[in-house]
Amino acid sequence: MSEFDLIRQHFIKATQHTNLGIGDDAALISVPIGVELAISTDMLVAGTHFFADIDAYQLGWKSLAVNVSDMAAMGANPKWATLAIALPAKDAIWLSQFSNGFFACAKIFNIDLIGGDTTRGPLTISVQIMGETPHGEAIKRSGAKIGDDIWVSGVLGDAALALAHIQNKCILTESEFLDCAKSLHMPQPRVTLGLALRNIANSAVDISDGLISDLSHILYASQTGAELRLNDFPCSNLMQKYRVNPLTQTMILAGGDDYELCFTAPADKHDEIISLGERLDLKLTKIGNITHGNGLIVRDFNDEVLSIKETGFDHFN
Amino acid sequence: MSEFDLIRQHFIKATQHTNLGIGDDAALISVPIGVELAISTDMLVAGTHFFADIDAYQLGWKSLAVNVSDMAAMGANPKWATLAIALPAKDAIWLSQFSNGFFACAKIFNIDLIGGDTTRGPLTISVQIMGETPHGEAIKRSGAKIGDDIWVSGVLGDAALALAHIQNKCILTESEFLDCAKSLHMPQPRVTLGLALRNIANSAVDISDGLISDLSHILYASQTGAELRLNDFPCSNLMQKYRVNPLTQTMILAGGDDYELCFTAPADKHDEIISLGERLDLKLTKIGNITHGNGLIVRDFNDEVLSIKETGFDHFN
Repeated sequence: MSEFDLIRQHFIKATQHTNLGIGDDAALISVPIGVELAISTDMLVAGTHFFADIDAYQLGWKSLAVNVSDMAAMGANPKWATLAIALPAKDAIWLSQFSNGFFACAKIFNIDLIGGDTTRGPLTISVQIMGETPHGEAIKRSGAKIGDDIWVSGVLGDAALALAHIQNKCILTESEFLDCAKSLHMPQPRVTLGLALRNIANSAVDISDGLISDLSHILYASQTGAELRLNDFPCSNLMQKYRVNPLTQTMILAGGDDYELCFTAPADKHDEIISLGERLDLKLTKIGNITHGNGLIVRDFNDEVLSIKETGFDHFN
Repeated sequence: MSEFDLIRQHFIKATQHTNLGIGDDAALISVPIGVELAISTDMLVAGTHFFADIDAYQLGWKSLAVNVSDMAAMGANPKWATLAIALPAKDAIWLSQFSNGFFACAKIFNIDLIGGDTTRGPLTISVQIMGETPHGEAIKRSGAKIGDDIWVSGVLGDAALALAHIQNKCILTESEFLDCAKSLHMPQPRVTLGLALRNIANSAVDISDGLISDLSHILYASQTGAELRLNDFPCSNLMQKYRVNPLTQTMILAGGDDYELCFTAPADKHDEIISLGERLDLKLTKIGNITHGNGLIVRDFNDEVLSIKETGFDHFN
């Protein structure tokens, strides 16, 4: 089967909002008047971002989901994606499972796959995503204001907990592992939340590398500091159970792969945000405040000040 | 140096037509009214598309140029690109050379780099490009009409000749090698030609995998056949000199990496195309015609019919 047949079989699906899809030198789309296009790209490499024996369906899901999460963090509505994939060998079963996972995520968020490149090489997946925001309404990292409340969605650290189990750094029961592994393997991008935050949040980022690392991007871009209380951080009952584990604090503060949103908003939006969380049936928790200067102060479970280095996952450190 | 510092140092440059560039969860661009956005992606993998010891500057140039070539083939004006790169190790010198080559190409075509992802892994480069065409004016593969003339720009096979020398399949003098290696390492995307062909050509494709393979995409999409005469094919004086070499025919018909345009146009556009070539100082050569049915007939140097398989480079065959 040629590369062209391969793409045709696994990656060409009917599109919903695309003028010309896969099969030409380029795809063609139209962007409505008054809309800005938000564009982002993420690459996943075997051995760096995932284990080479990862379930292909889950990898397909995650490859798109981590990009969708960037749209959510901008308050953008994801609509189009391209996929470039390098594979060690042509494996029809693997490709079919990968493609099923990718399109399962695409279907939920109404995303058209409009471009593809399939080639031989070490397993590497590169996705670019494009979404729409009304002009000027995107939520940027640079918008945090002194006094803003700092919020996070969902719970933090479950993906890191599942990873720690896989790496034998802690031992979970099978049901406990399956519970937190969902966050690691099948992250749920918070698109609906991101869209709702357009006129509420001053700044936002998605938590891919760990809260401290990702929040630091907001602080850097906004030239502000922050103060956080670990006791206020949302975590799962499972994480609560393992709270005695010395790793827990690091998992919550620096664990990557949760793909929740961290955002800042004026204090007077507090009640609106609480009711938004109820409407979306999504836990939204205030974990601290934006402060003067550029320091990041974190109070630990004993309310003592932790010394913070940039503890987030850095792909080269 | 963190991943973030790495990107900041080598890949963040002032942008010309971008609302928000690298440094947030996504970039933001505006698309003018009446314009379609053309989007394409290409991935280059060490060992598959290039030798791992390739000159980093040339690789940076080529990584963008092969994507720009897809815009040229659509008659689109390239404006924005994203770059995802996996590297075995953080090598500031290599990155600086790669980035210089990438931005040298970006500067010529006024392309903003608006998104990046840098990670550890086997050397792999994935670029996505976006460009503009007036609504409905993009040149598609599916537009070829029976009776159309088939044209190619520049000369064919020089990149394949340089590769054959590197692989010791033929021996060139150093000056001969340097001459044809330009096509292999520093391809020149035919953007100006593509833009000029918008209202002249019925269909177009760029020659990345080899003329036969790429022209076949036009024939497939347009449900037509074609007849070509090898004696009409344009090749360099160097290729003429090696014409006795049995490899020559294959290099011209199936050699990849030339990144010239192959396009079809009505016979009555012949003179307009000739004068366009003179205006652009770019050789444009008629190599055959679009025919009924779906067969591809090629007459060799002796005017005898060649049996044609899909001889283009297939990344999995």
